[in-house]
Amino acid sequence: MKHRVVVIGAGFAGLQTVLGLKGADCQITLIDQRNHHLFQPLLYQVATTLLATSDIAWPIRALLHDRDDVTTLLGTVEGVDRTAREVVLRSGTRVPFDTLVIATGARHAYFGKDAWEADAPGLKTLEDATTIRRRMLLAFERAELTEDEAERQALLTFTVIGAGPTGVELVGILAELAHRILPREFRHIDTRKARILLIEAGPRILPAFSDELSGYAKAALEKSGVEVMTGHPVTECTWDGITVAGQIIPARTTIWAAGVQASRAKDWLAAEGDRAGRVMVGDDLTVPGDPNIFVLGDTAHVISDGKPVPGVAPAAKQQGVYAARTIVARLRGQPKPAPFRYRHMGNLATIGRNAAVIEYGRFKMRGWLAWWVWGIAHIYFLIGARSRLFVSLSWLWVFLSGQNSARLITQKETLKETEREK
Amino acid sequence: MKHRVVVIGAGFAGLQTVLGLKGADCQITLIDQRNHHLFQPLLYQVATTLLATSDIAWPIRALLHDRDDVTTLLGTVEGVDRTAREVVLRSGTRVPFDTLVIATGARHAYFGKDAWEADAPGLKTLEDATTIRRRMLLAFERAELTEDEAERQALLTFTVIGAGPTGVELVGILAELAHRILPREFRHIDTRKARILLIEAGPRILPAFSDELSGYAKAALEKSGVEVMTGHPVTECTWDGITVAGQIIPARTTIWAAGVQASRAKDWLAAEGDRAGRVMVGDDLTVPGDPNIFVLGDTAHVISDGKPVPGVAPAAKQQGVYAARTIVARLRGQPKPAPFRYRHMGNLATIGRNAAVIEYGRFKMRGWLAWWVWGIAHIYFLIGARSRLFVSLSWLWVFLSGQNSARLITQKETLKETEREK
Repeated sequence: MKHRVVVIGAGFAGLQTVLGLKGADCQITLIDQRNHHLFQPLLYQVATTLLATSDIAWPIRALLHDRDDVTTLLGTVEGVDRTAREVVLRSGTRVPFDTLVIATGARHAYFGKDAWEADAPGLKTLEDATTIRRRMLLAFERAELTEDEAERQALLTFTVIGAGPTGVELVGILAELAHRILPREFRHIDTRKARILLIEAGPRILPAFSDELSGYAKAALEKSGVEVMTGHPVTECTWDGITVAGQIIPARTTIWAAGVQASRAKDWLAAEGDRAGRVMVGDDLTVPGDPNIFVLGDTAHVISDGKPVPGVAPAAKQQGVYAARTIVARLRGQPKPAPFRYRHMGNLATIGRNAAVIEYGRFKMRGWLAWWVWGIAHIYFLIGARSRLFVSLSWLWVFLSGQNSARLITQKETLKETEREK
Repeated sequence: MKHRVVVIGAGFAGLQTVLGLKGADCQITLIDQRNHHLFQPLLYQVATTLLATSDIAWPIRALLHDRDDVTTLLGTVEGVDRTAREVVLRSGTRVPFDTLVIATGARHAYFGKDAWEADAPGLKTLEDATTIRRRMLLAFERAELTEDEAERQALLTFTVIGAGPTGVELVGILAELAHRILPREFRHIDTRKARILLIEAGPRILPAFSDELSGYAKAALEKSGVEVMTGHPVTECTWDGITVAGQIIPARTTIWAAGVQASRAKDWLAAEGDRAGRVMVGDDLTVPGDPNIFVLGDTAHVISDGKPVPGVAPAAKQQGVYAARTIVARLRGQPKPAPFRYRHMGNLATIGRNAAVIEYGRFKMRGWLAWWVWGIAHIYFLIGARSRLFVSLSWLWVFLSGQNSARLITQKETLKETEREK
């Protein structure tokens, strides 16, 4: 019987593992809760109406249709039976493995305030993106309708909590929507008066970047009309607004970009984890004492060159490549590869539609040229010629016409959202 | 004060009315429950994974951004106060009018069996389309997982009830998905064994077409693997299957394309209606006795040349043009236009991705050339260069690559759907 590899999660790490096992002559089962692989780095562009959902998501089956060695299962994992060597699905199905690769990613973390999630959604899935898009667009619609001045101001106040790349990228586009695209479409409100706040507990935005680029990004955001508050954690977050620095800010739209919590893999394995719930793995990316169980990507705590590896797409991909190479070496009886080492590919973040910051070691770049480098890099990493073509054209269209294309309010509102209408 | 025109519904008829009132120097309020105008004739292509939602829907505000005479309101109408001359929204807001245009369209009709709706969704909104897309794709996924042969067959049975253009277009693409695109992606099931049934109570499919083209369409569908059943109404429809001709067909996916019911405009106006709930209007498209209230499109029963006008997009547009022209003539003190006359633009329907039928009076066309004529006509009627470009490219891509691009399962499943997983 062939060696059975089960991969849980078809994100960057899991998919890369499967791609790396091509020709390895094993029997692979890829399990995911969703039917699509998602290009998360561009998810904020779906949330802010620049791209359509299908531009950045691909059916997993279609990606692997020519891989007869791969079986794709749509299912939710409930646990791992390490004794029986089986993955247990919610449906009751048990999937046996010889080697297990867990790459189940992360969700938003509310630092113990889980109740905040309903009022301040995060951005990890396509549904998150369409929810944020709907709330944002509905806030403008309701502001146009209301006669109550205080309510109108609260509807026109948008807060984004957390100033990593996602937070910065969200407020950048949101400011352009409010200040440049929407003003000519509303009759009762002036959308240019919308307040857009970026709130960061740490001392500065984009903490992974140098002081210089962080300062540049702050100035660029402020110029485009964003209020940046640093050094103050949000102490309360409700449906009606947030509290920060002792001050209550009535805001009807709050988006969470402040932290992540690893998936439940640690519990499945009864393994040791860090504060964010990530499984501590060895330098070969396997669980201590169990060399046939790999944990990769955002759900693993990996040390490289003495530092924890960041939860970014290139790191996840590199880990997938490494895990596949290790599995192949074992199957072929070759020596074990050298310990995993993370190659940093630089930090990138966009500020609105015309500027970006890029940092790679001592190399720094900012402004519109950085935006183009960022754009070309992201198009290169999209899967398939179709997505490259359609995303490029979408950006080109927005660039030339100044019109975002996917400004749709879709899906039923939650009960809470509907109440706003009354 | 300027003459106040309130238009309810931004579908083909309502939008055309607003466009026709350009320069008429009145104050227009356009009310819709949704923030987008939807190109319904291509909605089946979203449901069957060929197009993205944003390809066929445009924010109403963006369409009318340069019309300072138009105020757009996102709101749900609860009623019309004919005495006070006000439209009443669910939010309590009252919108006064001098002239009212109601163009609120239609929903599916279940002929008194409203309970069927949850189990057999129809196709009128973007949410309907993503719901049908999700159920269809999930059925294949669950068939791949199940060990139960009877359940697998039920999951691989798709029934579409009603063989007008929508029903025919849905099964055409569904058959291609099952027989040509999906087979190489699944490992446990042979999707070519999926049963796709088109069920029609009347004696033949596409009843609006001639016998000849109707027969051609039937043969073409059967050749592509669709089972066509005519002359039998569905007598029962549940979550587990349907009953037709005394026979129970276990089917886990049922789509309703059998009939429509007009919106509630008749109740708002306390007006006379036909069996489908459409308001009976005069030959000037106004409600008898109230020349300042127009009812248009799918929600009006209009007679032209002694026959009822069909509920198709060109008819709705023509009525919008007529209503605007009538309003302008009144404002300018010009004579009343001649009674409304419907100009029939022909019948069109596609069969899969390579054939279509077209009928215009005695002119008949079928096959792949008809498909191209159909395609060019539809691209012409899309709004804006962006949609034309993106829809053309999407079709070209599918044509060249054989890969549908929008095969995403999105949005939370309903409780009933989740139970299927167990």
